[in-house]
Amino acid sequence: MKLSQIGEFGLIEIIKQSERKRADTLIGIGDDAAVMRMSNFQCPISNEGIASRFFKDKKYLLATTDALVQDVHFKLKKKESPQTFFNLGYKALASNISDIAAMGGVPTHALITVALPKNLELESIQQLYNGIDSLAKKYGIDIIGGDTVSSPKSLMISITLLGEVERENLLLRSGAKPGDLICVTGGFGKPASNNWKLDIGNWKLDIRLPDARKLATAKICSSMIDSSDGLARSVIELCKSSKTSAKIFTDNVPRVKNATLDQALYGGEEYELVFTLPENKLNKLPKNLKAKITVVGEILKKQDPMVQLIDSHGKIVKSKGGFEHFK
Amino acid sequence: MKLSQIGEFGLIEIIKQSERKRADTLIGIGDDAAVMRMSNFQCPISNEGIASRFFKDKKYLLATTDALVQDVHFKLKKKESPQTFFNLGYKALASNISDIAAMGGVPTHALITVALPKNLELESIQQLYNGIDSLAKKYGIDIIGGDTVSSPKSLMISITLLGEVERENLLLRSGAKPGDLICVTGGFGKPASNNWKLDIGNWKLDIRLPDARKLATAKICSSMIDSSDGLARSVIELCKSSKTSAKIFTDNVPRVKNATLDQALYGGEEYELVFTLPENKLNKLPKNLKAKITVVGEILKKQDPMVQLIDSHGKIVKSKGGFEHFK
Repeated sequence: MKLSQIGEFGLIEIIKQSERKRADTLIGIGDDAAVMRMSNFQCPISNEGIASRFFKDKKYLLATTDALVQDVHFKLKKKESPQTFFNLGYKALASNISDIAAMGGVPTHALITVALPKNLELESIQQLYNGIDSLAKKYGIDIIGGDTVSSPKSLMISITLLGEVERENLLLRSGAKPGDLICVTGGFGKPASNNWKLDIGNWKLDIRLPDARKLATAKICSSMIDSSDGLARSVIELCKSSKTSAKIFTDNVPRVKNATLDQALYGGEEYELVFTLPENKLNKLPKNLKAKITVVGEILKKQDPMVQLIDSHGKIVKSKGGFEHFK
Repeated sequence: MKLSQIGEFGLIEIIKQSERKRADTLIGIGDDAAVMRMSNFQCPISNEGIASRFFKDKKYLLATTDALVQDVHFKLKKKESPQTFFNLGYKALASNISDIAAMGGVPTHALITVALPKNLELESIQQLYNGIDSLAKKYGIDIIGGDTVSSPKSLMISITLLGEVERENLLLRSGAKPGDLICVTGGFGKPASNNWKLDIGNWKLDIRLPDARKLATAKICSSMIDSSDGLARSVIELCKSSKTSAKIFTDNVPRVKNATLDQALYGGEEYELVFTLPENKLNKLPKNLKAKITVVGEILKKQDPMVQLIDSHGKIVKSKGGFEHFK
């Protein structure tokens, strides 16, 4: 059986079978980032249940990793502009920051691995690092390590980002409850409608880290995920983790200018937040958010199909699912 | 200027310029792994000097990352054996464990990124994960995340490994002092003399994690590094960090059967420990080490050349330097 037949999400299911064993692993594979207790604070009592009653962690450690591969996530022309390499580095770190943000956390330390074709200009590599560095500086992230290896053909960037989150501000995918509203930041479809996925030279997007922190510390959300695999796929993953279903009102989905509904729902490669909250918390949304918040749907009890799209005529449209690698 | 003109170590120097800023980053780029204070334990006093007198950390967080790229670190035949994929996964994690071991630490959590050609058999991917998993289970490492992306051509595995080390057991590259003896575990030249670097099907090597822990907790070593870039290069890097020089007695370098001196000195791709200790600590070496320990040289005051090779006739041979990517 070939990889292309099962796709990325099928593969993740296989990998997830390798179950976690350590007492300090709170969340392993399956959320935007892994969550760990920091063992400085771990107590010597072997019974975790008893221990957790006496020893409250102040903060958890977060870890996430995300990779960009040439000709899969981006294309390079023979003579590529410095801006393209800057954007590449920027985007590689941005996607990781977005994962930490979606946990309610703050990024702290990054490890940068680049696989570089031998004939790459040093100037291009410098621009790549400048792109990474500009975001790292902006959000106070230290670059603490990495690996630089040569690559026979494709440029690849793989970043692991560590972060931290106060115990009470942690937001998971799994907390959504039937009746909760589904909210999103900003607008969707910009990368898809501008064909930015492969042509990264003009790519420019916000990350919602400050807004995510404000939402997390307001303690009103029941769950959160970022929209990097597309809005529809994000809602599906959120429902899977929360063991719920959902309906999305397609008319309510905020789209950027010129974006089609399909581009907004399935485009991905953008870093908006998708979060849920009980209806009575809607008036508690922080006032000073940078992004506009839109209610796009509602969490339902678990049913088939997992996600219903309700169009402008009130009709149910079947979801197509989000972007997957390998398929 | 092309990347191939400056090489990997030149590139690391460029990247290192992005200086660390966070108070909880103790060691950034430039050792086998990064070292961080876990901020659960970080005190609110802004003056780190005063703070560190009152608040002693029990443990530090460690992080390292290492990547393997097809046709650079290994080759694959059209029909490759399951063992080869198992070995690939095993080696990818082994090189990271070796980095944590060389800090005196214990590995805890891993993030696994694989870039997979679409036509790869699912069985091969499963074997790759089995290889990773077998080592993870052996050393109690949880696989907490990763990224699975498609690759146009080359298979690539990038692993980030977290670990921890008690404050008093931390071993750095920078602690060697003139007069210290240079010791190594095991024998050198096995991957090079067997041509294992690219043909990974028969690859089988120990990692020195248990021995490294015994050496660290014995508190007799002044510095430590692993030998993944080759013994000679490891001594050079250790000297750079410690601001010293060194002499290596080539007759003393333990070689595996059939390995030439050059293969033992420059071969790399093996995970022995290279460590220093004051001469009067030599009789304090733990008795229950698995690997044989050999004294191969001595740390000198900083001078030119940084590393002298002393051959069997007492003559000085100029060092050739270790393996570098890109060049």
